[in-house]
Amino acid sequence: MIELVALDADDTLWHNEPLFTSVRDQFCALLERYQPEGIPNDWLNGVEMRNLQHFGYGVKGFVLSMIETAIEMTGGNLEARDVSTIIGWGRDMLASPVELLEGACEVVEELAGTFRLILLTKGDLLHQETKLARSGLGHHFSGIEIVSEKDAPVYRRVMARYGVQPERFVMVGNSLRSDIVPVIEAGGHAIYVPYEGTWAHELVPAEQLASVQFHEIPHLRELPALLRSLPQSSG
Amino acid sequence: MIELVALDADDTLWHNEPLFTSVRDQFCALLERYQPEGIPNDWLNGVEMRNLQHFGYGVKGFVLSMIETAIEMTGGNLEARDVSTIIGWGRDMLASPVELLEGACEVVEELAGTFRLILLTKGDLLHQETKLARSGLGHHFSGIEIVSEKDAPVYRRVMARYGVQPERFVMVGNSLRSDIVPVIEAGGHAIYVPYEGTWAHELVPAEQLASVQFHEIPHLRELPALLRSLPQSSG
Repeated sequence: MIELVALDADDTLWHNEPLFTSVRDQFCALLERYQPEGIPNDWLNGVEMRNLQHFGYGVKGFVLSMIETAIEMTGGNLEARDVSTIIGWGRDMLASPVELLEGACEVVEELAGTFRLILLTKGDLLHQETKLARSGLGHHFSGIEIVSEKDAPVYRRVMARYGVQPERFVMVGNSLRSDIVPVIEAGGHAIYVPYEGTWAHELVPAEQLASVQFHEIPHLRELPALLRSLPQSSG
Repeated sequence: MIELVALDADDTLWHNEPLFTSVRDQFCALLERYQPEGIPNDWLNGVEMRNLQHFGYGVKGFVLSMIETAIEMTGGNLEARDVSTIIGWGRDMLASPVELLEGACEVVEELAGTFRLILLTKGDLLHQETKLARSGLGHHFSGIEIVSEKDAPVYRRVMARYGVQPERFVMVGNSLRSDIVPVIEAGGHAIYVPYEGTWAHELVPAEQLASVQFHEIPHLRELPALLRSLPQSSG
């Protein structure tokens, strides 16, 4: 019997990746003035990966990585006004309204009537809290857990904090790497709801997935029905 | 009888402000090349205040505010290499070793034998977790609460989360604004341990403090004795 349902936020409840994609496109357009022949697409990605251990997830780290990438790619000739433009994108991203996924509001409302719900997400503390407030969904959650990484020890800590046995815990999210694999490792259930575009870093090799038993639904709307079926399938 | 002792981290358990002060000094020195007549000291502070709502507390927001300040102060003539230098300071700050305040290790160890201890701090999630790991004190705490703001509702939520009545909760920290005033408002106890240099934003007007009943000790070493005396003084 499921007791605690943990929901991921970005690209599970509300759209997030399109905001980054749009800024990445603007970033490439900005640099065309310096490099009319175009810029290698994965340079920024490389800088982001390099900086992840220092800056963590979130908009501010992304902005710092864009600035570093731009300075590197222009051989140090980046103009200050372009740095300002990039910081401005960051501020816009942080101030951007929250656009819920279709059906998210109804699903969360329905689940809150049956289960204890928590929000369990990575990213920047202030920004995630702000987005939850903007989403209007905050009052449905009995807890908000914003973590710097989603690995098995973190999931075990969350289960312990809410006093729930692993077999009564389910995580719902769009990232195989963050929302599925480590939850199964921690003994919980996991439900994968793929988002239209998933960040490269979040992909998991097929061989690693082969041994992982998780549920998959094409749309969040199917979550309540699946959760109702779980007691039987897991019992 | 005190049950739960919440300790602030930056400038309560380990040195933090000197790191910022040192980078502020380097920042002024960097800009002297553009403005040999010197730069107004409070410009950066103003940009930080303006950005706080967007960027929150922590090193990454500080770095973005330094870059913005430098661009403004140089009339857009800031060179890209100086932007790189500023970002480099940020990375250094994030990677910087944790230097415990004198006696902090012994005090935390002693308190952990008697009370439930939690760490309750503002700032960047990943960075605070990293600093706690580097401090070697992590195993003494039964909970880590990293919050985006320390106000009375947040303190009430923390008390509820740990199932402790306000009169059995005490907060210990170096900031009147964050660690003392809102805790008293939430019905808890507060112990002020001033640090040698306190950030301007953290100051509280004397008239606001007049009605607030809190304890003050000159050094963290005096904390265990004060806590032992609290049951009497609050009973």
